Amino acid sequence: MSKTIKIFSPATVANIGCGFDVLGFALEKPGDVISVSLTDTPGSIVIRNEIANLNIPLDPARNTTTVALQAYLDFLKTDKHTGTTASHFISNHGIEVIFHEKIKPGSGLGSSSASAAAGVFGLNVLLGNPLKKSDLVQFAMQGESAACGVAHADNVAPAVLGGFVLVRSYMPLDVVALPYPDNLFVAIVHPQIEILTEDARKILPELVPLKDAVRQWGNVAGLVAGLAKGDHTLIGRSLQDVIVEPVRATLISGYYEAKQAAMTAGALGGNISGSGPSMFAFCSTFETAEAVAKAFAETFNALGIENQVYVSGINKEGVRVIAD
Amino acid sequence: MSKTIKIFSPATVANIGCGFDVLGFALEKPGDVISVSLTDTPGSIVIRNEIANLNIPLDPARNTTTVALQAYLDFLKTDKHTGTTASHFISNHGIEVIFHEKIKPGSGLGSSSASAAAGVFGLNVLLGNPLKKSDLVQFAMQGESAACGVAHADNVAPAVLGGFVLVRSYMPLDVVALPYPDNLFVAIVHPQIEILTEDARKILPELVPLKDAVRQWGNVAGLVAGLAKGDHTLIGRSLQDVIVEPVRATLISGYYEAKQAAMTAGALGGNISGSGPSMFAFCSTFETAEAVAKAFAETFNALGIENQVYVSGINKEGVRVIAD
Repeated sequence: MSKTIKIFSPATVANIGCGFDVLGFALEKPGDVISVSLTDTPGSIVIRNEIANLNIPLDPARNTTTVALQAYLDFLKTDKHTGTTASHFISNHGIEVIFHEKIKPGSGLGSSSASAAAGVFGLNVLLGNPLKKSDLVQFAMQGESAACGVAHADNVAPAVLGGFVLVRSYMPLDVVALPYPDNLFVAIVHPQIEILTEDARKILPELVPLKDAVRQWGNVAGLVAGLAKGDHTLIGRSLQDVIVEPVRATLISGYYEAKQAAMTAGALGGNISGSGPSMFAFCSTFETAEAVAKAFAETFNALGIENQVYVSGINKEGVRVIAD
Repeated sequence: MSKTIKIFSPATVANIGCGFDVLGFALEKPGDVISVSLTDTPGSIVIRNEIANLNIPLDPARNTTTVALQAYLDFLKTDKHTGTTASHFISNHGIEVIFHEKIKPGSGLGSSSASAAAGVFGLNVLLGNPLKKSDLVQFAMQGESAACGVAHADNVAPAVLGGFVLVRSYMPLDVVALPYPDNLFVAIVHPQIEILTEDARKILPELVPLKDAVRQWGNVAGLVAGLAKGDHTLIGRSLQDVIVEPVRATLISGYYEAKQAAMTAGALGGNISGSGPSMFAFCSTFETAEAVAKAFAETFNALGIENQVYVSGINKEGVRVIAD
């Protein structure tokens, strides 16, 4: 017996300007495409990589997807409700994971989170969905922590759930789906600049002035309210980050020029995606997002920095089956 | 010729736990009741106080209501659109302000903001509403600054507009009406403890750990989302303040006992109102709010601290005419 499903898991934008470490949203593209299969070799986990020019760990203990998947398997072994299915599964099957397409690692677009989300989601589907999607976030976080050393959820949660997501707290984990308007589009640029997430964290201050923190949570409140009200101009003017952007923008050559070009092309506002180097900009229409993507590309081209742009709506669903 | 209107201007709760300096909401009670009249003495501003046992400044240059009103008059003198009305008004009339009821000063319930809002609103009505309500906030802020030395808007804006209000920024002033559910009720207790707003500011740290600031804006985002979604439990668990409450609660004897009593009585969550000493708690029903108010009162009674409690819905309208 073998059963295979193919999964699309979306790129995500964490922080969204002012919401450092607590906010994120999912993109319609780019994304990972991964197959997950039940095999007839009990207990075995095998990874195959079909993507040219991309190195990913093939050791299941180091691969984001399989670490997340293993965390879910470990839970199944101890969980009362899903126990029978799990025992049956574990004693009869193994798992094969095949990578078909992959968001570029180090892009700041939640590459490792997308892979982690794909793993747990795929296994959950193959088992007949014993857990709700929202319950999968905790396992996907463990895959993310294998990649980054820290179990953050601001990419993982929107990759799993889609839409705009708030990670209000970690202890206990409190993930909140935020209301947002249909007519919101995103231009993304990924300039080929290397930034390690770890380095991007090291340069952050440990202490911040209270008055800056107040400005920041005023903007966070404005962004969440703007999304809930579908108020485009409020979304745009709330996309200010007085704490993290000034520090991290220094790691991205051409950042402020690109941001200015995006605004001139009609963006509502924009900022760094995650810890960079990618940047995002919100737009009211798909056409404006295309113009903004063009402006992004032209800016980095003029600076001689190779780059890739994407134009996307907000991904409503998160990780999903695209073929079975 | 003389024309008089009587105005109700509501008490307000600033900060709302996590939203220090940016969030506030208006109460149905208590509030100020003030009459504003046009008199036949050009340029004269007269204040009368009909409230027993309450001292308020009768000098128009020092009274919150008349300072705000004067700021609006000064604007009228220079404004092109309202210029004709203003010239006519100023050369023909004076103003008389009578205080009938007053929120206790120093309560942390926006007493000075209510008075300031009443002044500019009253004058605007008497002039035939040349300005929208939202345009009045900037003048009311100047009255507030006469009382507190700082022009804050987190009490003034909800006093003028009603509902839940975000002051996203001051430069430029950006006041945002937040969506909120109908079924939300408030228990308030005002223990008779003296706290000067100035002192409550002095004890705040100038620098805060970034990780605390992140937790705070996670909660702010949760509160705004909870209000927008009408999610009572999210509102409750977002009412955490890791930065200001730990410092200011030390100024309020019995604070944590009273908060615990409110939670035990069924409150969704609660915190300090403004800079205190008043406390507020949100509740899902009016009946629960009554029980919580009782628990508040009992706690402070047991400690021998005189106190006054209120039970209120959210004031939807803000400052309003109650008789003309």
